[in-house]
Amino acid sequence: MGEVITMSHGSGGRLMHRLIADLFQEAFGKGDGDDAARLPAPAGPLAFSVDGFVIKPLEFPGGDVGKLAVCGTVNDLAAAGARPEWFSASFILEEGLEIDLLRRVVASMARTAREAGVKVVTGDTKVVERGAAEGLFITTSGVGPIYDGTDIRGDGARPGDFLVVTGTVADHGAAVMMARQGLELSATLQSDCAPLAGLVGAALTAGLEIHAMRDPTRGGLATTLVEIAGQSRVRIFLEEERVPLAPPVRQACDLLGLDPLYVANEGKMIVVLPPGEAGPFLEIAREHPYGRQAAVVGRVEGGEPGVVLETTVGGRRPLVMLEGDPLPRIC
Amino acid sequence: MGEVITMSHGSGGRLMHRLIADLFQEAFGKGDGDDAARLPAPAGPLAFSVDGFVIKPLEFPGGDVGKLAVCGTVNDLAAAGARPEWFSASFILEEGLEIDLLRRVVASMARTAREAGVKVVTGDTKVVERGAAEGLFITTSGVGPIYDGTDIRGDGARPGDFLVVTGTVADHGAAVMMARQGLELSATLQSDCAPLAGLVGAALTAGLEIHAMRDPTRGGLATTLVEIAGQSRVRIFLEEERVPLAPPVRQACDLLGLDPLYVANEGKMIVVLPPGEAGPFLEIAREHPYGRQAAVVGRVEGGEPGVVLETTVGGRRPLVMLEGDPLPRIC
Repeated sequence: MGEVITMSHGSGGRLMHRLIADLFQEAFGKGDGDDAARLPAPAGPLAFSVDGFVIKPLEFPGGDVGKLAVCGTVNDLAAAGARPEWFSASFILEEGLEIDLLRRVVASMARTAREAGVKVVTGDTKVVERGAAEGLFITTSGVGPIYDGTDIRGDGARPGDFLVVTGTVADHGAAVMMARQGLELSATLQSDCAPLAGLVGAALTAGLEIHAMRDPTRGGLATTLVEIAGQSRVRIFLEEERVPLAPPVRQACDLLGLDPLYVANEGKMIVVLPPGEAGPFLEIAREHPYGRQAAVVGRVEGGEPGVVLETTVGGRRPLVMLEGDPLPRIC
Repeated sequence: MGEVITMSHGSGGRLMHRLIADLFQEAFGKGDGDDAARLPAPAGPLAFSVDGFVIKPLEFPGGDVGKLAVCGTVNDLAAAGARPEWFSASFILEEGLEIDLLRRVVASMARTAREAGVKVVTGDTKVVERGAAEGLFITTSGVGPIYDGTDIRGDGARPGDFLVVTGTVADHGAAVMMARQGLELSATLQSDCAPLAGLVGAALTAGLEIHAMRDPTRGGLATTLVEIAGQSRVRIFLEEERVPLAPPVRQACDLLGLDPLYVANEGKMIVVLPPGEAGPFLEIAREHPYGRQAAVVGRVEGGEPGVVLETTVGGRRPLVMLEGDPLPRIC
């Protein structure tokens, strides 16, 4: 067993300064040593978002808490029509955490940040006693300029719009739950954890008109659609057989007794846009590594706000918000 | 015992939405329901900072984790010469946390945010199982415009500058440690936890030239001065007898065996500025409720970078960075 985190790493003193220099600055670059970062004057409005990550286990097939912490906030900013640019990273470390594990997680964050084009410019580290946390919690916040001329919000869906999902659903939650149970159904069962800034940016710089966008994380596709339907006061029809679902994920959900429509994704976007924009969007998305299986999965109509699932066998049933908690600690 | 947090409050489903609406939106105002907030185009450069708060106990004389979480990030932004404006708040809640306690903490955050003139515009909530965290961890990040014409940084101290502290030291750490030990030395022993945006803003809008500024939290006055001396490559002389110290805090430090120069503050600023600016700064600070006991406590010289304490009895000794961890979990 290698070096571990001690309470002294959180005291504000010499060990903390060394941890910051050796580990965080090594990965994220050296700032000027001040508590706040300076951002140049932006040309227009900004999006600002935050997310905390408490996933168990800290490393899972397809990612780890660090990659997830970057992707989560990148995707929230992308969903607001923004280009993620500046990030903060705040760590709560448990005494006894292996520094090698922390180093891997931080390296994974830095790698993902580079891929997404974001700079981690400010951070914080706290240490809590053994037993007071589970290894490592990360909170990231991010700021980035909103693409010119875009006005994307959860209340923007309009009757007539099409509903696109950028790929298969339920991969993240299924992979994490199977890993947590110690089950291995298939080597191909992996979290979809990915930063979608590039894919979304490509669509927005191409001038596509998008009315609403959101990444379906906790609560899955169904809960996120219920949110959008409620905010936009529209009725959303989701066609079950059009929703991309990988066979091993379907098997895992069957085994775990989960409805894949309620299982979390960490590398997918729901995009609501005029019918004429759907074709061009799919073309752009499918050229992108994270959008190859993008598909139109439904449509927006007027009427009583809510979500209706058109099932594979030709039935219809309302989808409601997730009740209870089938999937704790998956992000 | 009232209602408590359950795992379902973190699932992304109906209970989480209700918690957000009833508790967080009630306190911070209702956003548009999206994952990212939109900030209007700022006129100039911004400061951006983050801080995590894991203090034990969650409520202490003079404050609570919520007030602290706002003050900590407000003060980091103020120290960068910025006016704190937009905040994120991210909560990690332990299953079993009393919702009444959470409500008090959130109300305290909202009160402090109003006082400091900041808006909490985006947030996140996660729930972890009983035993996986200690009740409640809060991470705040903040963004705000840097005051025109200011250039304040940790490496800005210059030989000839004066050193001002905006009031008594060690109040926060002493109050928290005494509370944690179940000791009550004096009813007047309280954390100094306070948002310094108003005080700093008054000095900056008056056009005072400030070279370096930092809030001496973890590691206390001594560690923070060592940081500034290192960044600015200067020698700082601190005059022990000039450092304001409340008698009950001195007693508490004696009892706990702590050097007050290494004990955390949460409502004080170290200000390094040209001698001619010190008088006007003290005048402004002393008119402010959080700066009544502001005092010049030392000076900056050239030479070997470091901090020298000129003791009350006329001796001199070097102050080094905090070693080890006399004060865990005080912020």
